[in-house]
Amino acid sequence: MSLSVYGTEIDSRLLIGTALYPSPAIMQQAVIASGAQVMTLSLKRQAPAEQGGQMIWQYLQQLADEHQIKLLPNTAGCKTANEAVTLAHMSRELFQTNWLKLEVIGDDYNLQPDPIELLKATKALIDDGFQILPYCTDDLVLCQRLYDLGCEVIMPWASPIGTGKGLMNPYNLATIRSRLPQATLIVDAGIGKPSDAVQALELGYDGVLLNSAVALASDPVAMAKAFSYAMQAGELAQQAGIMPERQTAQPSTPTLDTPFWHQT
Amino acid sequence: MSLSVYGTEIDSRLLIGTALYPSPAIMQQAVIASGAQVMTLSLKRQAPAEQGGQMIWQYLQQLADEHQIKLLPNTAGCKTANEAVTLAHMSRELFQTNWLKLEVIGDDYNLQPDPIELLKATKALIDDGFQILPYCTDDLVLCQRLYDLGCEVIMPWASPIGTGKGLMNPYNLATIRSRLPQATLIVDAGIGKPSDAVQALELGYDGVLLNSAVALASDPVAMAKAFSYAMQAGELAQQAGIMPERQTAQPSTPTLDTPFWHQT
Amino acid sequence: MSLSVYGTEIDSRLLIGTALYPSPAIMQQAVIASGAQVMTLSLKRQAPAEQGGQMIWQYLQQLADEHQIKLLPNTAGCKTANEAVTLAHMSRELFQTNWLKLEVIGDDYNLQPDPIELLKATKALIDDGFQILPYCTDDLVLCQRLYDLGCEVIMPWASPIGTGKGLMNPYNLATIRSRLPQATLIVDAGIGKPSDAVQALELGYDGVLLNSAVALASDPVAMAKAFSYAMQAGELAQQAGIMPERQTAQPSTPTLDTPFWHQT
Amino acid sequence: MSLSVYGTEIDSRLLIGTALYPSPAIMQQAVIASGAQVMTLSLKRQAPAEQGGQMIWQYLQQLADEHQIKLLPNTAGCKTANEAVTLAHMSRELFQTNWLKLEVIGDDYNLQPDPIELLKATKALIDDGFQILPYCTDDLVLCQRLYDLGCEVIMPWASPIGTGKGLMNPYNLATIRSRLPQATLIVDAGIGKPSDAVQALELGYDGVLLNSAVALASDPVAMAKAFSYAMQAGELAQQAGIMPERQTAQPSTPTLDTPFWHQT
Repeated sequence: MSLSVYGTEIDSRLLIGTALYPSPAIMQQAVIASGAQVMTLSLKRQAPAEQGGQMIWQYLQQLADEHQIKLLPNTAGCKTANEAVTLAHMSRELFQTNWLKLEVIGDDYNLQPDPIELLKATKALIDDGFQILPYCTDDLVLCQRLYDLGCEVIMPWASPIGTGKGLMNPYNLATIRSRLPQATLIVDAGIGKPSDAVQALELGYDGVLLNSAVALASDPVAMAKAFSYAMQAGELAQQAGIMPERQTAQPSTPTLDTPFWHQT
Repeated sequence: MSLSVYGTEIDSRLLIGTALYPSPAIMQQAVIASGAQVMTLSLKRQAPAEQGGQMIWQYLQQLADEHQIKLLPNTAGCKTANEAVTLAHMSRELFQTNWLKLEVIGDDYNLQPDPIELLKATKALIDDGFQILPYCTDDLVLCQRLYDLGCEVIMPWASPIGTGKGLMNPYNLATIRSRLPQATLIVDAGIGKPSDAVQALELGYDGVLLNSAVALASDPVAMAKAFSYAMQAGELAQQAGIMPERQTAQPSTPTLDTPFWHQT
Repeated sequence: MSLSVYGTEIDSRLLIGTALYPSPAIMQQAVIASGAQVMTLSLKRQAPAEQGGQMIWQYLQQLADEHQIKLLPNTAGCKTANEAVTLAHMSRELFQTNWLKLEVIGDDYNLQPDPIELLKATKALIDDGFQILPYCTDDLVLCQRLYDLGCEVIMPWASPIGTGKGLMNPYNLATIRSRLPQATLIVDAGIGKPSDAVQALELGYDGVLLNSAVALASDPVAMAKAFSYAMQAGELAQQAGIMPERQTAQPSTPTLDTPFWHQT
Repeated sequence: MSLSVYGTEIDSRLLIGTALYPSPAIMQQAVIASGAQVMTLSLKRQAPAEQGGQMIWQYLQQLADEHQIKLLPNTAGCKTANEAVTLAHMSRELFQTNWLKLEVIGDDYNLQPDPIELLKATKALIDDGFQILPYCTDDLVLCQRLYDLGCEVIMPWASPIGTGKGLMNPYNLATIRSRLPQATLIVDAGIGKPSDAVQALELGYDGVLLNSAVALASDPVAMAKAFSYAMQAGELAQQAGIMPERQTAQPSTPTLDTPFWHQT
């Protein structure tokens, strides 16, 4: 009933971002309401030398400490492996964690990961002792290679960041699930509403990472709570064994004069 | 935060069927786990004269009484308005309720409602004092006519009964919602998994009625619980204001050197 | 290889509307380019007493005569059975044909057919000797009833008029096809692009009726020609037996050292 | 009106495979009926030393010569860059062409391209003077990198080879089109029926490469002809400017008493 991230068992299957909220106070309330126990944050948000940046990090660190939430620094905004590696090291020093959501953006339009630079950065950082959670496209071979490099967690996208389009290609996501049964798989990016998150778990995914869907809702705190229920719904549904889809209608009315318990 | 059924406020947005379960005991546990406060049952299940049938009704009545669940008799299996009207009267006598899920099946293959006979039966039964919850197709004009006849609750299908195909035509369902803002709208039939139910509520539907999705799950009780979370997720999501879908990616990474609270 | 409309064999499976074109000249060229041999026109376009209206009808009549195109008057704009019946009689007198595309609109927003008024008008007009081509929703029971009344041709919608959304509910359309194997089935309304028309024929539909997709294209004449090819593609595809969809990849590379003709 | 492949203008936008047909005679008729002017073939089909293999190549070469069809050798079955490079050289020697459909398969289940090995092989072969048509996934960054290496033609998949699932992710395909306006883009793999091919061209793709959809049809020759019409439909549709999709219905019935040419 828990999500495994490099041997750490996490009770909630939701991972949440900390950007784009109307205010820090609403962000804090939303994170708590979501029940998430992993919170991503970007080192690029503020230059480390700048005081505002440090204040935010302290703020997030404090929020994490008070609510037993783990920090997952990310390399959002990096466009090359080298840049991501440099930022990763700064991040580890600052937040004292080997976990890293590795993002290496390859296109300014769809903000998708660059598969080549991602693999390069992953290899370098695993060699340096990081535990990588790579943000990647829904390309099975790319996921397989990340897994072979030592990624125990892999995070394919649902659709481009911030679009809220949900699961654009369920077939690809399902294929990755069935071909990498041992990996912890988290859908990252593109989730727009709770039904998308439920669908990801119903496909057998272990978790969902999102930001905009909560931060840009009219009421982020209520939406965060909605997602916390969605995760419970999806997790239970996946365990309970979803009925098979059928092509033709089947009466749920039992046949007349058949004992109840034999009616199908 | 509640579902209005002819002036009665119901706390759960889920309505559940009582057929097709592996056993009465599992049915009972599933109904309770679902949190549903409305339970449909079919008079056609057993001939009233037959003892087994009466036992089931007593069983369901007792379950309803003990858990403050309202009974919603249905006319499943009826193929003409006359047949449905006759069964409705028997049902009212037996269960002492004016509520009726009105089903008049028009085709043996897709088990869809017959729009003509449905309207005919609805008119007759409203004249007789019934409070009708009609099971209908996702035809806006049909829904409008049912509403004009006095149906405060209208229940269009998502897809054919027992197929688990989910929302086949979200456009039609959304159109009905926007055109009948005063009606209590419940999606009935075709729900296969919790994400379908969340999607219905996200579209602004007031409730979901299902049976097979729970009864035919590998573990009906766990699936019932999954749906109870799904209803909470969907209701909250609808209230919290879902982010608009966008065509192009938007970074959730804030711009460097911009104070956190101004970053978009 | 032809479309049967009440015993008349039509070589093209495309039926085309005559409204919304940039000019009569472009309309004429588009109709000819489309290869359509049936052309719908609305009596409501112009009051019969008004000279402009008569000029258009003469224009269309002449176009039809010169190119062996049959006229299919429609009752677009009618909102009741009575109104449609009256217009139908005026139309028969004017255009000397028993064919009628029967439209009875039931909602101002989605412009969908009113199933009840449609059935009523169909019955009255068949009694008066008309050969009805009813525009209806994708409701199997409604289609069955129209067929039982004597409609040899039935025309369910793909999506609302003028939306160009294509086939919103292929499952419903396929069900109607499989349940009414003897009827001539034409998809009417909602076609946006040639791939939609091909899809309709691939599902086994006998024809496609459209207007906006051609009239509102940037180049209506070229688009008309595109649809004429689409009809040929769809008809041949349906006859040629489409390969079954498969869940897993299959190499089209033959196995090494196997004679070509045995490779699968 | 033509497809540009490294400066050669091809009249048909269809490229066709030569495997999986019931017999060589049917293959030949299907290729001719399709109107394709580019024909792929696999060197791995037969060992070069074996006589049967040589006979097939001679057969295909003769077919190509007689019908002005260009041969496009492919590296189907290769799993590494090295293997593909070796096969490419053999192929160039045998068929006297610099064109190469480069396939480097990365997974036995979905038979998808390996993005890393594909880039490696592409680079090596372009250095050796080949003109590469790479078979790739619908990953924009991968396509961009192939383009930057010198690929004037890029061939993303629609769905896995032989599944006939059609365009699984139209959003990704459309994004690639809009971001690489100068590239010749061909959808390769996954096409199941003519409507899929029309859809690809409507999205602005320059061509379609397929094999199973024709070879596995009940009547491959008729299906080949269906696809030839589909290509004409799609090409014209794309040029003619498809009407915009709309959310609400728009009457195609003109307003009463408005001159025809002003009615909208």
